[in-house]
Amino acid sequence: MPEVIYVTGGARSGKSCYALKLAERYKCRVFLATAEAFDGEMQRRIDKHKQERDERFTTVEEPVYLDKALRALPDGTEVVLVDCLTVWLGNMMHYLGDEAAINERIDALLDVLKNPPCDIIFVSNEVGMGIVPENAMAREFRDLAGTLNRKVAERATQAYLLCSGLPLVLKK
Amino acid sequence: MPEVIYVTGGARSGKSCYALKLAERYKCRVFLATAEAFDGEMQRRIDKHKQERDERFTTVEEPVYLDKALRALPDGTEVVLVDCLTVWLGNMMHYLGDEAAINERIDALLDVLKNPPCDIIFVSNEVGMGIVPENAMAREFRDLAGTLNRKVAERATQAYLLCSGLPLVLKK
Amino acid sequence: MPEVIYVTGGARSGKSCYALKLAERYKCRVFLATAEAFDGEMQRRIDKHKQERDERFTTVEEPVYLDKALRALPDGTEVVLVDCLTVWLGNMMHYLGDEAAINERIDALLDVLKNPPCDIIFVSNEVGMGIVPENAMAREFRDLAGTLNRKVAERATQAYLLCSGLPLVLKK
Repeated sequence: MPEVIYVTGGARSGKSCYALKLAERYKCRVFLATAEAFDGEMQRRIDKHKQERDERFTTVEEPVYLDKALRALPDGTEVVLVDCLTVWLGNMMHYLGDEAAINERIDALLDVLKNPPCDIIFVSNEVGMGIVPENAMAREFRDLAGTLNRKVAERATQAYLLCSGLPLVLKK
Repeated sequence: MPEVIYVTGGARSGKSCYALKLAERYKCRVFLATAEAFDGEMQRRIDKHKQERDERFTTVEEPVYLDKALRALPDGTEVVLVDCLTVWLGNMMHYLGDEAAINERIDALLDVLKNPPCDIIFVSNEVGMGIVPENAMAREFRDLAGTLNRKVAERATQAYLLCSGLPLVLKK
Repeated sequence: MPEVIYVTGGARSGKSCYALKLAERYKCRVFLATAEAFDGEMQRRIDKHKQERDERFTTVEEPVYLDKALRALPDGTEVVLVDCLTVWLGNMMHYLGDEAAINERIDALLDVLKNPPCDIIFVSNEVGMGIVPENAMAREFRDLAGTLNRKVAERATQAYLLCSGLPLVLKK
């Protein structure tokens, strides 16, 4: 049975770095990027992350239909690194809008996890440990992110919380 | 000596779920709800949580005088699940106002913990791991919440931090 | 080789208390305070922390040139407690402004850590586990804080995340 590895943490906590390190032991690697560049700040972040990846990753970009992208990986893929779940959620809120449509996509992802095509490493973000946001959409986002994280972490075979670049084991 | 179990975590991290699971091994259970519905969003949250509880809980509602509610539990109560400390703190800021009156109530709670009437499971929220809030009242709230959490966790016999639905052991 | 101990956590999570406790086993102690009082709220925090420290600390105040302060400790210093890194970062953003100048100071600190003059205990703050701030400067701050924390934690011989006053071991 393939491994499903879940890596979460705060901003700049070393999540992506840690996930990339976990992917090093595989030969045939796919990087599934969920981020789209909406502005210059975002583009700089994407470029920075691209530089940090080595060339042995094939990059696939999919902002919304994560389940379909995971079912259509190149033959021989040993691991896919999905970076990241919260950006994916933000995209779904932007493109799909209502919660029913979002939950449909999440259920489709969880379906893939019942029988993963290869080892999968998910990167997510911890966004719920600050003060309650004043903005209603931000509150909705952090509620949905928390629920999404729990669902994916529940199905993971390994789970880590990164803090200051160091991993705390949530499940192993 | 009764157990005092402290469960904290971010928004939608699975704190209440975990606390409910810990309560499963008891027969005679009380759910001490601190939340009041101020608006529709809050009412929906309360209703969602009520649905998640099974019928073997007796529900008691007390927004402010937690110490008195804990001293007046029905005879035979084996465990009381207090959900949650940060909502209680918010209520105290709203109804009592000044810090002295709030600290009096917190001291009264800590007094109960010196000789608990039964096992107690506290649910709280981690609200201090984001950026410093611009709003002065939010800053005050997170300072008071941090201090309250430390005081209760100090007296706990077990303490857990939930992250993505998974528990990290703080004390056991 | 001297120890470098890194202690992080959210607001009012017990970081400073824990660091002070770690410092108790030393005789000749320096407290290196990075905070400056910009307003009454800040002054009250500083005074509160001063009260919590015992008299066996020599206090040194340095808002920006942490590397120089660490190289100029009194003879015989066994431990220096640096409280805290995120306030230092805020000061650097205020006084130095641009990222290049800030990174120069961070590199100078990391240089000191290659050959520490004595045991060092760093207190920092976890600021990246909330929702993405709407304010661009707050986003910049939390990105820089995350990166700074990773760099210092990487060089630490021990690292702890405080939550509700209780330590989670990140590295030991």
